[in-house]
Amino acid sequence: MKNKAGQLNKPSPAPGGAMAEVGVALLGFGTVGGGVADLLNRNGDLIAARAGVRPVLRRVADQNLQASPEIAIDRSLFVRDAAEAVADPSVSLVVELIGGTGAARECVLDALRRGKPVITANKALLAHHGAELFAESRRCGVPIYFEASVGGGIPVLRALREGLIADRVSSVLGIVNGTCNYILTRMEEQHCEYDEALAAARAKGYAERDPSLDVDGWDTAHKAVVLAALALGAWIPLDRVSRRGIAGLDARDIELAAARGLRIKLLALIRNGPSGLEVGVEPCLVPAQGLLGPVRGVFNAVLVRASPVGDTLYYGRGAGREATASAVAGDIAEAAARLVSGGGRPAGLPCDGAAPALTGAGDVEAQQYLRVSFPDDRAGERTEAAWAVLGRHGLHPLEAHAQTHAGDGGSSLVLRTRTAPARSADAAAAALAGLPGAEPRPVRLRIEEV
Amino acid sequence: MKNKAGQLNKPSPAPGGAMAEVGVALLGFGTVGGGVADLLNRNGDLIAARAGVRPVLRRVADQNLQASPEIAIDRSLFVRDAAEAVADPSVSLVVELIGGTGAARECVLDALRRGKPVITANKALLAHHGAELFAESRRCGVPIYFEASVGGGIPVLRALREGLIADRVSSVLGIVNGTCNYILTRMEEQHCEYDEALAAARAKGYAERDPSLDVDGWDTAHKAVVLAALALGAWIPLDRVSRRGIAGLDARDIELAAARGLRIKLLALIRNGPSGLEVGVEPCLVPAQGLLGPVRGVFNAVLVRASPVGDTLYYGRGAGREATASAVAGDIAEAAARLVSGGGRPAGLPCDGAAPALTGAGDVEAQQYLRVSFPDDRAGERTEAAWAVLGRHGLHPLEAHAQTHAGDGGSSLVLRTRTAPARSADAAAAALAGLPGAEPRPVRLRIEEV
Repeated sequence: MKNKAGQLNKPSPAPGGAMAEVGVALLGFGTVGGGVADLLNRNGDLIAARAGVRPVLRRVADQNLQASPEIAIDRSLFVRDAAEAVADPSVSLVVELIGGTGAARECVLDALRRGKPVITANKALLAHHGAELFAESRRCGVPIYFEASVGGGIPVLRALREGLIADRVSSVLGIVNGTCNYILTRMEEQHCEYDEALAAARAKGYAERDPSLDVDGWDTAHKAVVLAALALGAWIPLDRVSRRGIAGLDARDIELAAARGLRIKLLALIRNGPSGLEVGVEPCLVPAQGLLGPVRGVFNAVLVRASPVGDTLYYGRGAGREATASAVAGDIAEAAARLVSGGGRPAGLPCDGAAPALTGAGDVEAQQYLRVSFPDDRAGERTEAAWAVLGRHGLHPLEAHAQTHAGDGGSSLVLRTRTAPARSADAAAAALAGLPGAEPRPVRLRIEEV
Repeated sequence: MKNKAGQLNKPSPAPGGAMAEVGVALLGFGTVGGGVADLLNRNGDLIAARAGVRPVLRRVADQNLQASPEIAIDRSLFVRDAAEAVADPSVSLVVELIGGTGAARECVLDALRRGKPVITANKALLAHHGAELFAESRRCGVPIYFEASVGGGIPVLRALREGLIADRVSSVLGIVNGTCNYILTRMEEQHCEYDEALAAARAKGYAERDPSLDVDGWDTAHKAVVLAALALGAWIPLDRVSRRGIAGLDARDIELAAARGLRIKLLALIRNGPSGLEVGVEPCLVPAQGLLGPVRGVFNAVLVRASPVGDTLYYGRGAGREATASAVAGDIAEAAARLVSGGGRPAGLPCDGAAPALTGAGDVEAQQYLRVSFPDDRAGERTEAAWAVLGRHGLHPLEAHAQTHAGDGGSSLVLRTRTAPARSADAAAAALAGLPGAEPRPVRLRIEEV
């Protein structure tokens, strides 16, 4: 077997001197697909040495095939029809990078029924059809690998699936959308408004022309479903995931948070807490010096609280060609090794148990941040009235702070409360708008002390 | 199968309704052994549901058997002789928690030769005998699992072994000794000297009466060997690991570092850099706001730089009964699942390749921090002379800063240099002691911008 000079990992000697090969079909040859092909080329010997088996590309399917010239790939592998690639007898593993929930679902089901393990990076597919796909996976006895679907190159699903297999997970809090985290970081660092930060994200290629999938929290919700499947052992229907995005967040709240040592982060939240079981997406105030606060730009981090292990945190690049290709190739190597060794399905995969009941978003309890602004500089004079509003809604204030704005002559009143249901805090926020002279739309944000 | 109410993970239905059981022997029933037995009791159904197999304790061997009353364990499982437990035909997996490198080594070899996979948390054993044990593991076709040997409950070895299997690792930097990190954190937070912080660590049970294993960097060196085995695919002989501990670190340097936004951390360092391949242990100055600087107290973190994935960080409790038991039980579950499914050896295990040549500690290049102190307040007047000393040793200063001490009327000169070999910096430090009126023993510390 070839082994490039300077490579530290020698291939393991295989019986008879030949290493087993496993045929791989790549469905979808976009950014990530190209990255995977490139990685299998570049690090093929390394992967073979470590996995004891060599994954080999046999088919590459894309309706709009364009091999970039820098990726050395045999053009005879190209087909237009994904189904043809799945059916090809030289193919034993199917890598689904088509995206979306239509053709991708068909291809995955087809592969499973043909006994071909599937690797996918498609969180939308899993969030919409995870229960169906994993039921079929179990029925067929053929695994689905999906490390790249959450946290890009961070092996956090593997940690949940295997590393913490003996642990009971009480919560998972994740910054899992790099676009949103970039926008929030930019707003804080550049002291700019949401629209300006979004434009910067677009200019950098971090945000789509229609950014809704990211900024309205859909992508984070998809990932919350996947994280919940591993943490809870059941697929939560996507429409039961509470969801609040970052679109239109006010720079004023980012500044006021920063002055309190807090940062706003869009979190995927899975928590089995005193107010019940929660799966949701929400912008939260977290300590700037805590575990999630320092995560800046497009980086991701997932904090897992489990017993007996305690807190563990996983950090890295959450998206992009390289990081995603790393995760996909890791899954390919594991799948190939298991296929050759007859090693059955990997441990810790989501089972098809009934989804547990969730607490309604309004009933989830947390410390709350409330902010109401005024066009004049007399926010301080409304403190007592605001305090009374909180009392009427059963909220216990921990802090009330009036602050004059630097530029516009106005002022803001910031209130921080003890743990209370979101519904009560939202109602109190609405009532604060009725204070004399108050600007419309007071803000309510959840505080997470992590 | 039993399934406790309120448990979210339902056991998977097994063929014929019965779940396979795998017999486990626990060698050593100290703190961690008790934690593992307790965890298998408490979360046994959860582990069985996720792994598809039930690990069951069949033998517990300890020369000084004392079951704590709170652990429900059948006393008929107890034996005094570890070899008897390994040989017992009801035992299929052996968990080595004896510690040390004598009896533990014998038991591991014995188990492998009997075809029984081994789980160990013993970093000293791996650092001293890893090459021998893994050669035997390969010869017998029987795996060794060792997640708990580095980073306690953090599944960082699994990440290196499987998650980053397709990646080329360029460096691993780890805070992997909680005792040292506690002492360093304490020195900074309490503004106290090393001896006082060590006494506090002893009082909390974090440090042994003879703290040398921790504070002289031996434990970190053991873990560096294990991390290097996974990152480089070869066992580096322990005596080739450069090692410098934290014993006797001067509180003055912690204060001076803090004033520059830096913290001192004891790092395990594996790096394939411009100055060659390095495996070592050294207290380093790292940015307080970077990836490793914020890791405080007994927590651990490992930063892995690899291509294509980029930086990933793994954080959590690095020691203690609970965290270690989590990692051991995770390995037991994986080993049991592989045993039942006939799944061969796990991917990414250290191969027995020849150890690569290492750069000598003196040739490793880094930015350097130098500090020389004076009993008078005239450090500033020696700046030019110090500058000249650096120049004579081929060092390029980035910063020179004189500072009067708060208490003793003395002063210090802090110099920060461009990347330079440790040998040159050590020589320059020695020469700085020759400056007129200088106190003996100037300090040289490495700076790592992570």
